[in-house]
Amino acid sequence: MAGTAPAGRFARATTVTPAGEGRWTAAVEPGWDVAGNAHGGVLLAIATRALAAATDRPDPVTITAHYLRPVATGPLEVATTVIRRGRALATASATVTQEGTPRVHAVATMGTAEADPEVLLAEGAPPDLPPVEVCHHMVPVPGAAPSFTEKVDLRLHPDDAGFMRGEPTGRARMRGWLRLADGEAMDGVALTMATDALPPTVFNLDLPVGWTPTVELTAHVRARPVEGWLRTEFRTCFVSGGRLEADGLLWDERGVLVAQSRQLALVPRRGW
Amino acid sequence: MAGTAPAGRFARATTVTPAGEGRWTAAVEPGWDVAGNAHGGVLLAIATRALAAATDRPDPVTITAHYLRPVATGPLEVATTVIRRGRALATASATVTQEGTPRVHAVATMGTAEADPEVLLAEGAPPDLPPVEVCHHMVPVPGAAPSFTEKVDLRLHPDDAGFMRGEPTGRARMRGWLRLADGEAMDGVALTMATDALPPTVFNLDLPVGWTPTVELTAHVRARPVEGWLRTEFRTCFVSGGRLEADGLLWDERGVLVAQSRQLALVPRRGW
Repeated sequence: MAGTAPAGRFARATTVTPAGEGRWTAAVEPGWDVAGNAHGGVLLAIATRALAAATDRPDPVTITAHYLRPVATGPLEVATTVIRRGRALATASATVTQEGTPRVHAVATMGTAEADPEVLLAEGAPPDLPPVEVCHHMVPVPGAAPSFTEKVDLRLHPDDAGFMRGEPTGRARMRGWLRLADGEAMDGVALTMATDALPPTVFNLDLPVGWTPTVELTAHVRARPVEGWLRTEFRTCFVSGGRLEADGLLWDERGVLVAQSRQLALVPRRGW
Repeated sequence: MAGTAPAGRFARATTVTPAGEGRWTAAVEPGWDVAGNAHGGVLLAIATRALAAATDRPDPVTITAHYLRPVATGPLEVATTVIRRGRALATASATVTQEGTPRVHAVATMGTAEADPEVLLAEGAPPDLPPVEVCHHMVPVPGAAPSFTEKVDLRLHPDDAGFMRGEPTGRARMRGWLRLADGEAMDGVALTMATDALPPTVFNLDLPVGWTPTVELTAHVRARPVEGWLRTEFRTCFVSGGRLEADGLLWDERGVLVAQSRQLALVPRRGW
């Protein structure tokens, strides 16, 4: 479907345009925001796209982003610095600025994800999800919900959707199917976005449902996914001192682990 | 014991000396190496110390290091850049160079770890370790073992020490007691070192026992530890495409989670 208008919506939304040595321009389009603030996963994808261009390596072996300040929809600049260029891997940093102020700082070791990596150990399996059509289709809800669910097709496990009815399950877990809308294929850049795409795990605890600011997110791309749905699972084990971690596992339709992630976030406050 | 010669051995080994705006000098002393290469945890601690000085915040809320090239014992330079200075938190990067070449690049959000954080969720508990004196005391072994075990007191769970007799357990797990030698108290900087101090988890798989190069390590300091031993547990669930993750949990003597870590490493080759 490459080349048709709807197929490349994510690719277009995360496009970076060269603007000089180590300089790129980009934009967060309206609709890739959560209540006016740019979605963290899309910002991560934009930074990754710039890092891929700067290093000439398509996939983040491991990428870390620190979220410094909210980003509004509209134009962005990205400045990249290559720190080490090796034979297979390259390490570089990217600072995303808006109106002259740094908003996100990322550092990554970039490389090429294998399509079919040899698996020597896999303790863990994709989450057991009911069929897509039985899962809870996340759609924009006026006010609270991310409007980016029009572009990222998310189907939450019904057992994890309790928070949406004001009935948190008590387990800090979110599981769901995920793909880009319009059947756009997912690459290593899209996987980074996917590591931050589900509702916060802690919405299923007895905590406020609202903005859960990410301090830092690290994603490892472990394989290049085949076309189709991802099965994703996010879990939080420790909420202490106003902070929590959320660990993600993302699997493709073959049951291959394609990405692993952890973020450190602040306990949500009510509202957005 | 502060002030006495042996008490501050770790603090001294990770000292950074100002050398101009955002510039620091340090040195890896002989004995903080593994077969001639500086220990990754000590390099992380040196970078953290520089980041703490540059931001005037004692503890890494979250720190990520990318390991670019091996480091020999001897002098180092650290260059720090403050990216954002907030009220409570500050984000900065540090590049550790030796002989003009970047060796480690770190980025951290620094702050102040709480001594006694309120715990809202704790799914997981410290590992059940036999008494210290029953555990396997890691001591330098000619050739292979890190000589830094003279300065970091490590007592491995006997069930995880099989690899040392050439009998890997088959479970990619390492558990053990850890403290600084001479009873030196552990701060947030020492915790970062501790996240990389145990033998690689995968030594207990049917893989070569040898250098397991860390590509990237991220550590979250979740609380300031009380004096005494840490109880630590490291696990690997996925070895694929020549890469593996190792997740660490570190607890203090109260049973408080003080740090959480994940590293991405390459599958070991035989030898060092």
